Amino acid sequence: MGEFERIARFLAPLAGEGAEGLKDDAAYSYDRVLTKDVLVEGVHFLSSDPVDLVARKALRVNQSDVIAKGATPEAYLLGLVWPKSRTESAFADFCAGLELEQRETGLKLLGGDTTAGDRLLVSVTMFGMPVSDRRILRSGGQAGDLVYVSGTIGDGLLGLEAAKLSPPADDAAAMPYRVPRVPFGVERLIADHATASLDVSDGLVADAGHLAEESGVQIIIDASQVPLSDAGRKARAQGRLAELLTAGDDYQSLILAPADAAKALRGSFTAIGRAVEGEGVIVLGANGEPMELKRSGWDHFGR
Amino acid sequence: MGEFERIARFLAPLAGEGAEGLKDDAAYSYDRVLTKDVLVEGVHFLSSDPVDLVARKALRVNQSDVIAKGATPEAYLLGLVWPKSRTESAFADFCAGLELEQRETGLKLLGGDTTAGDRLLVSVTMFGMPVSDRRILRSGGQAGDLVYVSGTIGDGLLGLEAAKLSPPADDAAAMPYRVPRVPFGVERLIADHATASLDVSDGLVADAGHLAEESGVQIIIDASQVPLSDAGRKARAQGRLAELLTAGDDYQSLILAPADAAKALRGSFTAIGRAVEGEGVIVLGANGEPMELKRSGWDHFGR
Repeated sequence: MGEFERIARFLAPLAGEGAEGLKDDAAYSYDRVLTKDVLVEGVHFLSSDPVDLVARKALRVNQSDVIAKGATPEAYLLGLVWPKSRTESAFADFCAGLELEQRETGLKLLGGDTTAGDRLLVSVTMFGMPVSDRRILRSGGQAGDLVYVSGTIGDGLLGLEAAKLSPPADDAAAMPYRVPRVPFGVERLIADHATASLDVSDGLVADAGHLAEESGVQIIIDASQVPLSDAGRKARAQGRLAELLTAGDDYQSLILAPADAAKALRGSFTAIGRAVEGEGVIVLGANGEPMELKRSGWDHFGR
Repeated sequence: MGEFERIARFLAPLAGEGAEGLKDDAAYSYDRVLTKDVLVEGVHFLSSDPVDLVARKALRVNQSDVIAKGATPEAYLLGLVWPKSRTESAFADFCAGLELEQRETGLKLLGGDTTAGDRLLVSVTMFGMPVSDRRILRSGGQAGDLVYVSGTIGDGLLGLEAAKLSPPADDAAAMPYRVPRVPFGVERLIADHATASLDVSDGLVADAGHLAEESGVQIIIDASQVPLSDAGRKARAQGRLAELLTAGDDYQSLILAPADAAKALRGSFTAIGRAVEGEGVIVLGANGEPMELKRSGWDHFGR
């Protein structure tokens, strides 16, 4: 049983009002958007990643969830498992990473818990202020909507590959994995225009699948329209486009919105496809034929 | 550097409004009391503990923080690291534990995150509705206040010892460790009468020390007045009183309140000492002399 089925079967029946049956990454409660993402050493970051960047990543991936729901990140609680094997000065570095991220984003720390354990683990609960009264769920999309994505796709994977090299590649190449390029500021556009949204954490195709399933539509992605960075274009030239579209860790916002929102969204979002009657996700390659994808994305528990 | 010093030096400067400089286990924000406690397998519960009881404990220890701040627990976010080595049916058991606790307490699940990892870890963020407008911090106590504690002390330790036996002792003996006897309902008394409060998680003497330090008083505890269960009285007869007073995991509310609150608090709280001018904690034994204590309580990072 996969992560999503397990949540649906065992945890969803426990959900309260605002939790939307746990179908979203975030809840609308207490007049805020709430989200909680746990980062585990060796799963969500590498043991060799600089610890100040781990701190920043933990805040970024949670801000990504909040932004995708049309809300501005404002405060967080921090749960930290800190192994005794990591030094005092590493703890100071970790906190310096939090501070830098707070200074750049205006986030405030509200409280939390620190404890010992074998592996570094960072559990963040993030609070965001919704830009408007609209709740933007995964389920609001309709046939006829276009599919838009912020930023570029695939850089999380390429950054991970750079971070894994030994000796490591230059830090700049690893940065998109270590400190994801979260689309700060797009929450207003999302609040104004999106019919459905989420952040791309499991992989573009897998996450498009979540939107398709909850909105009851089929999503057709035109692979040639998916925005890529220079590094991404280089990887595409090496025949790795399918990998970029199915890797996780991008933390961009993926939304459905009407075609007439295209002008307003331009500059922050790229139209990459459309929602039609049906189900599932089809990715059209350069030749206009559906691409063969070995996997759609990331599921922590496999299937 | 200990856990408390580390928080004070590196994390407190990051704290926002309502976080009270991270000196409390909970924050007053968003018109709620917020708290976040992380439970790690092998640290906060045993690998052999039934997993439905681990779920209940995770909710209990967080409710304990909320109640001690004069608030009624109402909802939570769940962050779960679930090892692949644990079975599907164990996952169902875990969720059944959550459900039982929700049914007994009226708690609702708002959302969260599940991921894989080596060891079971449960990170809960709990929201409580304050009974009144008063913020009850660790720092509000005054010389002249009495010291009151709910429930009985030392049962967490005795329960842990029972849970560790092989073959295990009867489940009833281990229960106070596995599902702490949180004093549900005392939040109203705390809101009405306490000048300072916290929950007893690090050990009665250590936690009294936190109240003394933040309130700027000395706390004198009369050991003979500390409420004990039948099991606790038996351990006292074996000369283990000092252990009971310094072990963690009791999750009772420890408060300072005026002497004239004694009547109102009776039945839910026991007066065990008083706050005077000075600093630190003195525990008076049966002979009226200060007891020698080898340790005051639990600090995850040692000193």
